Order: sequence, then C-alpha cells, then structure tokens
Amino acid sequence: MPRKLLEGLLVGIDHVGICVGKMDESCALWSELLGVPACDRECVAPQKTEAAFVDPPDGDATVELVSPMEGNAGLFKFLEKRGDGLHHLAFAVTDIREALARLKEAGVPVIDQEPRKGARGHLVAFLHPKAMNGTLVELVERHH
Amino acid sequence: MPRKLLEGLLVGIDHVGICVGKMDESCALWSELLGVPACDRECVAPQKTEAAFVDPPDGDATVELVSPMEGNAGLFKFLEKRGDGLHHLAFAVTDIREALARLKEAGVPVIDQEPRKGARGHLVAFLHPKAMNGTLVELVERHH
Repeated sequence: MPRKLLEGLLVGIDHVGICVGKMDESCALWSELLGVPACDRECVAPQKTEAAFVDPPDGDATVELVSPMEGNAGLFKFLEKRGDGLHHLAFAVTDIREALARLKEAGVPVIDQEPRKGARGHLVAFLHPKAMNGTLVELVERHH
Repeated sequence: MPRKLLEGLLVGIDHVGICVGKMDESCALWSELLGVPACDRECVAPQKTEAAFVDPPDGDATVELVSPMEGNAGLFKFLEKRGDGLHHLAFAVTDIREALARLKEAGVPVIDQEPRKGARGHLVAFLHPKAMNGTLVELVERHH
C-alpha cells in the first residue's frame, strides 16, 4: 500500500458500528448507558439494514447500532457466528469518490466500487476487512 | 439497568481499539491509510499490552492499535480465535470513579472494580462485554 492514501481527505472517526439482533433492546441499552437518546432510526434499503444512532454529547464520532433486514446474509451470518458485537469502523472523508479512486488505484481491496447511500443520507463505501487488520472499514462522506 | 448511567459524565468516543499481532506492520498499515503517523507507542505494563495510536486530524476520537505482551492470555486468545480485528470501544468520561460507582451500584458487570493506569497516562476501566451487546467497553479519564 503506498503511503498516506487518505491524506488531505480524512476528517476523523465518523462512527463505530455495532451489529445487534434486537434493535429495540439495544437502543434502550446504549441510550441508558450513555445518557442520550437513540435517534435517527431508519431502514437503509441499499444496505438492507436497520440503523439507529446514539450520539455522545461531544465530538462527531458516534455509535451506530445496525441490524440486518431480510436478505442481508452478511449481517445474519455475523450474528449467527459471533452474536452481537463490534462490526465496523467508519471514517469521515471530504470526498469519497476521490478516496475510493486512490484506494482502488493502490490495489486496496474494496467491497464497494462506487459509493452507496448509507444511513443519515450520507454516501458510504466499505473496504474489504482483509485490507485493514481484519477490520471492516467504512468511508463516509457526510451530507447534512 | 437504570436510565442514563453516564449522564453528565460522558464526553465522547475516546478511541476504538484494534487488536493486532504484528505491531510494526499494523502501525505502518494504518498510518498509510489514514495519512498520519502512528504515535505514542508504549508498553502499558498494568494492561500487559503494547499500544500505539493513529490520530485522525479532526476530533478527539482516535484509533488504538493494541498487541498482547507476555502473560496477556485474553488478547492472545482473541488473536488465536479471530485474528486481528476490532477489540474494544472506549468512551471518555470526566470522572471515572463516579462512573464506575454508578455502574456498580446499578449492577452493571465490570471487569475492573477500580480504575487502572492505561495508555497515554489515562485512567481506564473495562466493563464486561456481556453488559453491552457483546462489546467490550472501556471508560477513559484523560490525563493530559
């Protein structure tokens, strides 16, 4: 991998994704721990997921709870194999198309060749977990 | 779990911990992806870990790479079972002793009954992963 792929594009950690089997219970649990309500719960059709967020008071980095909808074999398999738990790590970038172009040019294995619509109306793309120490990395271009 | 345990104490996400078997290679890999150097690499004796950080440009939420030192059966077992990957999620709080007291009073299962010295000189304590959807949650009181 060449040096500094996301240099000048990286903003910071956007969210940490936690895969859960029971969204209602998990929204209540994380809301109770962190002392803030779960919000922006939605079905994200292009990802075949249901998502909700628990936003800490400070900073832009947040917790995403994500649950599979029908047809999402990947997340159902994750839950079957490991149960609920840490699923992915998302970084905000200023230009997701430029970021993806750099990664692909460098031969970094990606899951999404083009950005897709993610939760909160953001554009997102996933790298292959084998690229980054078994960690599923998501890129997010925020659309507020 | 009673409502809003960390209300008034929570700052935000402090870091995401990624467990890795080869620290040199992983520092290079994450540094190259994110375009920022790995820093503050140290042996954290109380945790029996080696840790290093890759700090994104914006925000306080960062990536911690963590590798087991001799005697750290938990992390060696993690690597043997799953390989490198997402390991824990850490939240910064303003008062870790008060946070732990509230959690224990509420019956939340914790690993550390008292705060311990963590990386970067911070005080840290881990909750039991069964408390939070299979997610190993760490509390951090930052000492700059």
